[in-house]
Amino acid sequence: MSELSVNHLLGIKYLNEKDIQLIFETADHFKEVINRPIKKVPSLRDITIANLFFENSTRTRLSFELAEKRLSADIINFSAAQSSVKKGETLIDTVNNILSMKVDMVVMRHPNPGAGVFLSKNVNASIVNAGDGAHEHPTQALLDSYSIREKLGDVAGKKVVIVGDILHSRVALSNIFALHLQGAKVKVCGPKTLIPKYITSLGVEVETNLRKALEWCDVANMLRVQNERLDMSYFPSTREYTQQFGVNKAILDSLSKQIVIMHPGPINRGVEITSDVADSKQAIILNQVENGVAIRMAVIYLLASKIKQ
Amino acid sequence: MSELSVNHLLGIKYLNEKDIQLIFETADHFKEVINRPIKKVPSLRDITIANLFFENSTRTRLSFELAEKRLSADIINFSAAQSSVKKGETLIDTVNNILSMKVDMVVMRHPNPGAGVFLSKNVNASIVNAGDGAHEHPTQALLDSYSIREKLGDVAGKKVVIVGDILHSRVALSNIFALHLQGAKVKVCGPKTLIPKYITSLGVEVETNLRKALEWCDVANMLRVQNERLDMSYFPSTREYTQQFGVNKAILDSLSKQIVIMHPGPINRGVEITSDVADSKQAIILNQVENGVAIRMAVIYLLASKIKQ
Amino acid sequence: MSELSVNHLLGIKYLNEKDIQLIFETADHFKEVINRPIKKVPSLRDITIANLFFENSTRTRLSFELAEKRLSADIINFSAAQSSVKKGETLIDTVNNILSMKVDMVVMRHPNPGAGVFLSKNVNASIVNAGDGAHEHPTQALLDSYSIREKLGDVAGKKVVIVGDILHSRVALSNIFALHLQGAKVKVCGPKTLIPKYITSLGVEVETNLRKALEWCDVANMLRVQNERLDMSYFPSTREYTQQFGVNKAILDSLSKQIVIMHPGPINRGVEITSDVADSKQAIILNQVENGVAIRMAVIYLLASKIKQ
Repeated sequence: MSELSVNHLLGIKYLNEKDIQLIFETADHFKEVINRPIKKVPSLRDITIANLFFENSTRTRLSFELAEKRLSADIINFSAAQSSVKKGETLIDTVNNILSMKVDMVVMRHPNPGAGVFLSKNVNASIVNAGDGAHEHPTQALLDSYSIREKLGDVAGKKVVIVGDILHSRVALSNIFALHLQGAKVKVCGPKTLIPKYITSLGVEVETNLRKALEWCDVANMLRVQNERLDMSYFPSTREYTQQFGVNKAILDSLSKQIVIMHPGPINRGVEITSDVADSKQAIILNQVENGVAIRMAVIYLLASKIKQ
Repeated sequence: MSELSVNHLLGIKYLNEKDIQLIFETADHFKEVINRPIKKVPSLRDITIANLFFENSTRTRLSFELAEKRLSADIINFSAAQSSVKKGETLIDTVNNILSMKVDMVVMRHPNPGAGVFLSKNVNASIVNAGDGAHEHPTQALLDSYSIREKLGDVAGKKVVIVGDILHSRVALSNIFALHLQGAKVKVCGPKTLIPKYITSLGVEVETNLRKALEWCDVANMLRVQNERLDMSYFPSTREYTQQFGVNKAILDSLSKQIVIMHPGPINRGVEITSDVADSKQAIILNQVENGVAIRMAVIYLLASKIKQ
Repeated sequence: MSELSVNHLLGIKYLNEKDIQLIFETADHFKEVINRPIKKVPSLRDITIANLFFENSTRTRLSFELAEKRLSADIINFSAAQSSVKKGETLIDTVNNILSMKVDMVVMRHPNPGAGVFLSKNVNASIVNAGDGAHEHPTQALLDSYSIREKLGDVAGKKVVIVGDILHSRVALSNIFALHLQGAKVKVCGPKTLIPKYITSLGVEVETNLRKALEWCDVANMLRVQNERLDMSYFPSTREYTQQFGVNKAILDSLSKQIVIMHPGPINRGVEITSDVADSKQAIILNQVENGVAIRMAVIYLLASKIKQ
């Protein structure tokens, strides 16, 4: 039987194309499961998972938790607010303590880039990166590609533009890796101050004109604007951002073809996209959320299979 | 088979008398269940419930959570502190995101009056209002009436006085609606500054003399005094409040009949009631708490039956 | 069949030697369970446990929660941050409310010494003390002794030194009671300002010279230094503490025999012990954590048996 080439999901950059296809085929099965009346399978009754969130998160945490429950895994939750980390304990000690309680897998969100990689080399458990600083957010990129595949039949050959604050975005980076692996073309679009210089070295083109970017693409992935950040220390202000990089229905309707609109959430309605765009048939934002549970079930299931060997 | 006339529990004012009787008869069954050694039924194994608490709550949250567990539902918990709401997301977007993860029912406490009603018109799930600002707290009113029925055999014809801060109380409003629907008579009693002018338009008499109110009633529902609020901006002060509207054992014993004492909790012992009153046989405060679990099981079970159709 | 002599676990000082042996034998069974692929038993499907944490805790809370899940108990969690305690409710009222929801057992951490004892006299449920101020932390002492028994074959006759801030430590006090009950000899070692005068009345010798203490003992239990406390109001400072009472590999290797190093966690690496000591084969720190789950399963299981009679 097929299996992943990795023992952890630390980032898309550690996966190969076959891994992604295996995750997608497994997610197809679980998507069917979660649409049944009884949305559960007993597959992971023998697995205990710790969800370690060193940063707040709503949707990612709930999505992982539901994925784990629907696989019948045992779960313990741990958030930074309650943590010994405050008492000066090292990350490795914290995690080793939890693992000593017979935990098999750790899902971790951490503010530091590379925290998951570091951990995977120092503890004996399967690690799933649920976002590590501005580095990677691999399950988000997987659910994004899975949603494109579902909507357009395939990812290969598609043109995807990622719009917004590329500099601070783990979503952008993971998406670039995932889309390239699958043979899609990627451009990024946003204010120059929010596009890192190294981005072209990843084979990504920069387009600062939104209309041109949208005319080119099949899919626009509209990143969330962090209002507080823009207004305080970056040009442009939120209002200027919206004028130059916000998508409204008039722009969408003026394009030569119907493009797909994605958004990782939470949406600032009226900032990066207007309400009529968010609620239009071209938007697949809630499909992304639904697919997130199936993708996370697939990732956890496939990593657990490797533990059990 | 009988069913509720509604698809949501948004407030008592949307129920009819038959709904209340159906909820009570269903709660009778579940009260028997939770007094068995195995306090669970597998009824809702196919239902996923999200508990969304945008305000802190101990007893209501725990009571709903236990009710859901005893029906074998899948549960996800979400509290405002961790929420995307802080990131500027709208309530509808937050809830639609959660529903996209295949959630069937939402139990919500929210500081804004009407939040549940608003939500029920904009999302596709069954909504249970667990308290919306100073508006309604329907499960509290149901468990209160259920506890009166248990103690006195019937609610119809009974005289109930609600004592305290009526102005800010969702418990008072929901109780007035529920008691009237069942043919009870209701008076309110408290400082004039804490009784809203519109209350008489609901067919409720105002009695500012506590002794007269207690002499009249079969049941006194003593609302919690919010110390901080009284002392800061309202007349009377907490001490004055207790002198005029607090119930002690001497007052109780001097009445011409034994009345029933209720309290929605948490109690300020020595403020709205003294300890000997709280712990007396006339008080059914802990019965209210026990009945809360059975009532919530009934409400969730009956709403879930409508989803499954 | 054997049973505990008590209905609560309030402190080691309420147990007898047979109780400890019964807990250990039961834990032996559960340790075998949690090392199976399916780490669960259905033993407590009919028991509901409330975890009430009036103080933050990571490892103890997670350990209890996992123990309860692996016994298949129903669980509700309650932490002070969300609590009605803030609203002026008494501890007894808070707990009685929770018990009215048909809860059978309460696991409680509380900042006040004796909170568990007080509660056990005033409510009708089995109470497990998960740490009450500087008083007792009985499950920690049980898992410590259990880990010594596992490592050295027996506790009787062994020499144990507890090093550190004895004055503020519930771990120290519970360990002294447990070790004496089992026939071990105990010394304490630390700065004079952190050793309470009454300690010698418990039959414990004070040794202020670390090297002498280590030469004497079979086991050194290194308590966590609370940095903030030391630097602010006590002599010595953290640096001075480490110089006089910290254990490093050079000291360990210079002793005439191999001693066992224990630590209740979380570790301040470089303060009470250096990293090479924490990670050495003489340290059984992670075994303590693993044994904690088995010990807590045993305690809960044995107390539940008494409820069911």
